[in-house]
Amino acid sequence: MQTRVTRMLGIRHPIVQGGMQWVGRAELASAVSNAGALGILTALTQADPEALRREILRCREMTDQPFGVNLTILPTLRPVPYEEYLDAILDSGVRIVETAGRNPEPYMPRLKQAGATVIHKCTSVRHALKAEALGCDIVSVDGFECAGHPGEDDVSNLVLLPLAARRLKIPFLASGGFADGRGLAAALALGADGINMGTRFLVTREAPVHPMVKQRLVEASERDTALILRSLRNTSRVFSNGVVRQVLEIEARPGETDFAQIAPLVKGNRGRELFETGDMERGVCSAGMVVGLIEDIPACEELVSRIVREAGHIIRERLLPLTEA
Amino acid sequence: MQTRVTRMLGIRHPIVQGGMQWVGRAELASAVSNAGALGILTALTQADPEALRREILRCREMTDQPFGVNLTILPTLRPVPYEEYLDAILDSGVRIVETAGRNPEPYMPRLKQAGATVIHKCTSVRHALKAEALGCDIVSVDGFECAGHPGEDDVSNLVLLPLAARRLKIPFLASGGFADGRGLAAALALGADGINMGTRFLVTREAPVHPMVKQRLVEASERDTALILRSLRNTSRVFSNGVVRQVLEIEARPGETDFAQIAPLVKGNRGRELFETGDMERGVCSAGMVVGLIEDIPACEELVSRIVREAGHIIRERLLPLTEA
Repeated sequence: MQTRVTRMLGIRHPIVQGGMQWVGRAELASAVSNAGALGILTALTQADPEALRREILRCREMTDQPFGVNLTILPTLRPVPYEEYLDAILDSGVRIVETAGRNPEPYMPRLKQAGATVIHKCTSVRHALKAEALGCDIVSVDGFECAGHPGEDDVSNLVLLPLAARRLKIPFLASGGFADGRGLAAALALGADGINMGTRFLVTREAPVHPMVKQRLVEASERDTALILRSLRNTSRVFSNGVVRQVLEIEARPGETDFAQIAPLVKGNRGRELFETGDMERGVCSAGMVVGLIEDIPACEELVSRIVREAGHIIRERLLPLTEA
Repeated sequence: MQTRVTRMLGIRHPIVQGGMQWVGRAELASAVSNAGALGILTALTQADPEALRREILRCREMTDQPFGVNLTILPTLRPVPYEEYLDAILDSGVRIVETAGRNPEPYMPRLKQAGATVIHKCTSVRHALKAEALGCDIVSVDGFECAGHPGEDDVSNLVLLPLAARRLKIPFLASGGFADGRGLAAALALGADGINMGTRFLVTREAPVHPMVKQRLVEASERDTALILRSLRNTSRVFSNGVVRQVLEIEARPGETDFAQIAPLVKGNRGRELFETGDMERGVCSAGMVVGLIEDIPACEELVSRIVREAGHIIRERLLPLTEA
């Protein structure tokens, strides 16, 4: 299934793996790319730019298909050497970069000069228009459903995607709420040129996280995610567990939220221990509302081909006959 | 465009007008039905069952197409003669009834005995399964996006509809977030057999509300609705205005929400004065997130045919070629 996005990225299917901290390693990114979708390494999962160089090399040994690197630009307490991470990406020959978090403007000249295709993640149409104006090639439109940072507007993709389709000139990926062929067909109908999936790829055989994490997400329902850090205007959608309930209690208390109380619960390595140990109470794990639609732990190849096959079937066997009736 | 729902309802297009208090009168319902979709009168907009009988007669004079009546069953301070409203509906020969609010079980024997087709509005899959078990013919699945009562789960339609498609045997309408052909095509892809639109039909030439209301909703963006009454577990999505901000302030105060303070702001005739006077600060008006997609005030005939035409175009000219590429 070819769209503007597949042609720009040189991939076979209009599906991109979402950048996921601690998860976007060579095992997953290469498996996704080998399946004909776009795998994404996450730069900041690597301890330093040197480690990222090694991870890119490792990924390239595992696939001869295109893959990208996510660079998430966030305010952090300790300074992050973003420029050096970017050196590692571009020196290693990667030419697909997903930017997220803050405005990617400072990095655009270098990215464009290197001939990179830039995908910027946005949670609103106004930010998407800004990214288009900055020269980004593709935007990934993150709705209310998405894991991690859905923004503060609470606009879901059924509304956000048609708005993006009306206003953007560059192509966009639909992100948040997608896990199956129905979703892919719907995203294409709403005007997207593909889908971005994080949580769904987290629950695959190749995702480098503890099997108990995957099993717990299979069991989770659509009601098992929660939004934390709203009081700090840094809303995050996460898997609902005891730690998350503690954070929500602190946030619900009268007066300004005491960040000092929340920080130890969510900071730094949030998710890392949980992913490594499989103990779902140990930290905070981003998860999209779409966990409610995830019922198995397939290999990436099986997942991608199933989604594309299902979407094609829905279009030809369900939608087309309706237009003739 | 024929689906299971159009065949059950005897209509030409898979579009149903949402029941709207103070808006679902003969002018709008007949215009929607004449356009080939299903118009819906709202029983409790009429002061008493006798007035509803007259309104049904009036609607029948304005259209020879099928239309339905919405009966919303809610806990209220003053007792509402639901049985007598139901008499009015069935005696008048109406055989399509939309139930909403509480469990319709007490009314099901009479509805089924009369041969009525029952559409029940649900905000979760578990309630939809319950409605199916009770013998409802169709459910209308209301996502997080919808105007009025989206429930307390905050699950948007991108996730809720595929879940409904996997679990329900009876057909369902997608409700909340729909206003155009992209949305109709997406709803059908997600497994729905049609869409239910409230806010979009409110902003039509025939909707019996003040023109200034329609104009203000055209100007509104996707960020101009808010959820109130969450603290009372009776969440409502409404157009954001000064009254709504007052309610939200009261709800944000520490401790239990003082209903006595909120009641005068939202009670009884909420919306009615606003709709009649066109003063958008006078009361509270339900509005869906989809206001951000509404840009004109068409006649119902024009709106319905445009949506169906657009959906057909998207399916044939956009989606089908993608499956061949």
